[in-house]
Amino acid sequence: MAAPSLNKDTRVCISLAGRPSNLGTRFHNSLYAELGLDFLYKAFTTDDLEGAVRGVRALGFRGCSVSMPFKTTIIPMLDAVEDSAADIDAVNTVVNDDGVLTGSNTDVEAVATLLVEHALDPGSRVVLRGSGSMASAVSAAFSRAGFERVTVWARDPEAGGRIAERDGHHYSEVEPDGADLLVNVTPLGMAGPDEDALSFSPESVRAASAVFDVVALPVETPLVRAARAAGLPVVTGAEVHALQAALQFERYTGVRLTREQVDRAHAFAREG
Amino acid sequence: MAAPSLNKDTRVCISLAGRPSNLGTRFHNSLYAELGLDFLYKAFTTDDLEGAVRGVRALGFRGCSVSMPFKTTIIPMLDAVEDSAADIDAVNTVVNDDGVLTGSNTDVEAVATLLVEHALDPGSRVVLRGSGSMASAVSAAFSRAGFERVTVWARDPEAGGRIAERDGHHYSEVEPDGADLLVNVTPLGMAGPDEDALSFSPESVRAASAVFDVVALPVETPLVRAARAAGLPVVTGAEVHALQAALQFERYTGVRLTREQVDRAHAFAREG
Repeated sequence: MAAPSLNKDTRVCISLAGRPSNLGTRFHNSLYAELGLDFLYKAFTTDDLEGAVRGVRALGFRGCSVSMPFKTTIIPMLDAVEDSAADIDAVNTVVNDDGVLTGSNTDVEAVATLLVEHALDPGSRVVLRGSGSMASAVSAAFSRAGFERVTVWARDPEAGGRIAERDGHHYSEVEPDGADLLVNVTPLGMAGPDEDALSFSPESVRAASAVFDVVALPVETPLVRAARAAGLPVVTGAEVHALQAALQFERYTGVRLTREQVDRAHAFAREG
Repeated sequence: MAAPSLNKDTRVCISLAGRPSNLGTRFHNSLYAELGLDFLYKAFTTDDLEGAVRGVRALGFRGCSVSMPFKTTIIPMLDAVEDSAADIDAVNTVVNDDGVLTGSNTDVEAVATLLVEHALDPGSRVVLRGSGSMASAVSAAFSRAGFERVTVWARDPEAGGRIAERDGHHYSEVEPDGADLLVNVTPLGMAGPDEDALSFSPESVRAASAVFDVVALPVETPLVRAARAAGLPVVTGAEVHALQAALQFERYTGVRLTREQVDRAHAFAREG
């Protein structure tokens, strides 16, 4: 429900996703209210991406967050794309500066930041499972953070091989042995048909020294639970989601959030 | 500012105007809040009407209110147009039913309703000043309400003559004498360069028995003040605006408002 204080000058940010959730809408609007920013944020889906982008321009929306399946197809509709997004052929953030639409990718930046914050050793042997557009972003982030012993594990040799080659990683069609850091960027463990699936073998979890699961809904995936049971340090999809949303927030509003603000808004977002 | 309770399923209505005001945004959102409806309403302007309508479709907005200068140019972009709008070649309301956009005109209905509510005599001699799209709507409303002695007074003989002919009224290029009811549908008296202008001569006001001024900002135009000073009954633009907005509200949400709800929301809208 809208606030009566909405007015003609309120700036609008939207998101476009095949299957919208409430996370972004609740995250951004709760911060607008807390900070007294005259903005509103609203999630949408569409079967006409070009029409939606045309609407962003025609109505002067300030920003547009982009999720699957639109991250790559939106690129030709934009005026400029930052390296962060061009390198991986995936945009998750569009900023509208007086009619000039620029695409970027805050997932890459969020993941690279988390690798540093969690003090994960760039010398670790990493297995990154997945070959979708988020796996592509995570792979790029590991490169950017200086990790040089990364294997991309994916059933699809074409997609997995392409990502590995691009980022200077190895590719494996089967689960590699002996990883220090296990990184899941597949839907395994996500709410839905695969929610009970453990994305790495129990042997891999036992051998690992840390786990990073990009799945955000739920946070406590089978992989995360297994890692916690084994006493391993864990980086969760909730952290990725919160940090990339905070980076979007800054691009849309110019306001850099404190960690406390991000955590509070993200906790609120997850209640809805 | 948005409410934190906005969510992915919140239905969106917008308005498109060359010079947006806050009236509609405040009117609709205050009622959504009062009635607990999960809707939001936001005014926009655009320099790409076709792109805006494409956005309405692509993002599945529920409704779109249309003001000058878009009321006629929007017609070919819609899927259907009700008689109320087709007759006068002007749409002020678009409802989106699962992708089918239907245009209508709640100004005509609002004015016709006010003529009845104020018990204005259909036998009166009426002078209606103006030849723009709102004048066209008001002229049609007088016809619909059974007024048969109406003269359209406008400097532009083509536009004024066309409206008069269409609705079975007379046309005059100069101010006619002896009217019972004076109706202003020009910007004379509106905030801006013409705010001090009296839209009818003092002699006409003295001779009249009632005055109807469609200008809504401000309500107390020179014509309204002169009429009140002369003790004449007055119908104001505020009444037209509130009633047509209530009719739009009903089309968008399915909720018929009480007069008290309309008056309260309209009073709130005018504060902003």
